Amino acid sequence: MSSRAAYKHLMRINTRWKDNDIYGHVNNVEYYSYFDTVINAYLIDCDALDIHTGTVIGLCAESHCKFLDSLAFPMAVDAALRVVHLGRSSVRYEIGLFAEDEDTPAAQGWFVHVFVDRVTRKSAPLPDALRAALAALQVGPTP
Amino acid sequence: MSSRAAYKHLMRINTRWKDNDIYGHVNNVEYYSYFDTVINAYLIDCDALDIHTGTVIGLCAESHCKFLDSLAFPMAVDAALRVVHLGRSSVRYEIGLFAEDEDTPAAQGWFVHVFVDRVTRKSAPLPDALRAALAALQVGPTP
Amino acid sequence: MSSRAAYKHLMRINTRWKDNDIYGHVNNVEYYSYFDTVINAYLIDCDALDIHTGTVIGLCAESHCKFLDSLAFPMAVDAALRVVHLGRSSVRYEIGLFAEDEDTPAAQGWFVHVFVDRVTRKSAPLPDALRAALAALQVGPTP
Amino acid sequence: MSSRAAYKHLMRINTRWKDNDIYGHVNNVEYYSYFDTVINAYLIDCDALDIHTGTVIGLCAESHCKFLDSLAFPMAVDAALRVVHLGRSSVRYEIGLFAEDEDTPAAQGWFVHVFVDRVTRKSAPLPDALRAALAALQVGPTP
Repeated sequence: MSSRAAYKHLMRINTRWKDNDIYGHVNNVEYYSYFDTVINAYLIDCDALDIHTGTVIGLCAESHCKFLDSLAFPMAVDAALRVVHLGRSSVRYEIGLFAEDEDTPAAQGWFVHVFVDRVTRKSAPLPDALRAALAALQVGPTP
Repeated sequence: MSSRAAYKHLMRINTRWKDNDIYGHVNNVEYYSYFDTVINAYLIDCDALDIHTGTVIGLCAESHCKFLDSLAFPMAVDAALRVVHLGRSSVRYEIGLFAEDEDTPAAQGWFVHVFVDRVTRKSAPLPDALRAALAALQVGPTP
Repeated sequence: MSSRAAYKHLMRINTRWKDNDIYGHVNNVEYYSYFDTVINAYLIDCDALDIHTGTVIGLCAESHCKFLDSLAFPMAVDAALRVVHLGRSSVRYEIGLFAEDEDTPAAQGWFVHVFVDRVTRKSAPLPDALRAALAALQVGPTP
Repeated sequence: MSSRAAYKHLMRINTRWKDNDIYGHVNNVEYYSYFDTVINAYLIDCDALDIHTGTVIGLCAESHCKFLDSLAFPMAVDAALRVVHLGRSSVRYEIGLFAEDEDTPAAQGWFVHVFVDRVTRKSAPLPDALRAALAALQVGPTP
């Protein structure tokens, strides 16, 4: 398991009332919402992705999550992000979700983004600004 | 309270696992999701609204819901729809949500759609096909 | 329209990637999710509501939202809260949603919470701690 | 890739307006919502799981999805389900998501359910009715 220090970027995400399911904890589905929130917010904040008018958009090709501990509204969740593979038109991220003040992850997952042309939806090489933003998250061989 | 017969269109909507909140019933927020699902599905199925490329899009200007009884996954919900006011560029719908096999609504609400130009987001007159689809849902003065 | 100063409590809420709908802005449904998030987080943080084991739970009886301007991921949203009516077992809140750094609301709404016994779901008088937390949000006649 | 015939149970799920994200297709997160909807609806309909008062509840330990093609509101999605491993207190499902009228999956994934005591949240052996319902979905070695 990776602690917070093993990641390159961190975003604090509020939980919401409806994240809790009938069993009183954040539903498994929402964990994936935290994944694509930390990823896209990072890229947009870096001016590396323009989701409204950019020529290249990112689609999820594959994702995975291992659930280790529960999270629950109203706690905040820290979503930690790193890049473990950066290809010509795709990238593989790893994400750790941490309850506030915890250094043991509540979940670990990964997410593959494939970048495509907005109109044709054909695979497109990563524009320079996007590649630079992703490279800044890159770590060596996964610990 | 209006029964099913007081509406002009009905759509059966599955509930989902995560619709249930910590108290074991469909979260209030999801009721509004049923509202915009029955509305937009109707308009798209009538070929009256092209959400991908049409020049006119519908934005929600105001909505309301009165919660009368609980709904819960995995039951199906019937969303019933009628139009009570049809203007130059806007429409006011009323929606009833019914548990399957019930004729007493679990919720009643309304929703105002304002149609605007996709690019400028300025108010736009209703195209003919859209007006016709909406007129088909129109009822007299609300019962 | 009420500015931020007209409310008694403020909570900053991150938007999420999937809050944006096909038209590129936060879906109308999510506004209501911000409503019940600011309300319940406030009550829980005040130790006034125990959503896991408390004998009294809050159900939404009625809600309303007027949409004035768009919000969009990845901006943060400030949800502002006040109480305009406090009854024996129910409360009426008003909520304003503000884009970060804006003092003109993107939306204004209200929400009626009815408190009931967790088991019987019959209306229950507000426990003292809950009443105190709600009274602290109370404003005079709505401006 | 597995076609519909490779699964043992099928549930038709409506898409909703807000399933579509800014790029006009169902957000990756919602695919996982279809997963836990088909699983839990099946178990409840078999009277094998009582999500409100049963002593045993199912928690997601791990999930995965490979996205092969897009889905979009307002189409219906067929969620197909089978069991590939049935243990003492856990089960591994595989799910295929198909656009209506398609026999090539839009997504394939898997989901591990661990059953625990509702109160202690400790792993619990599968009750007989639950085991029978799961066994009915079992296939041989995954094709």
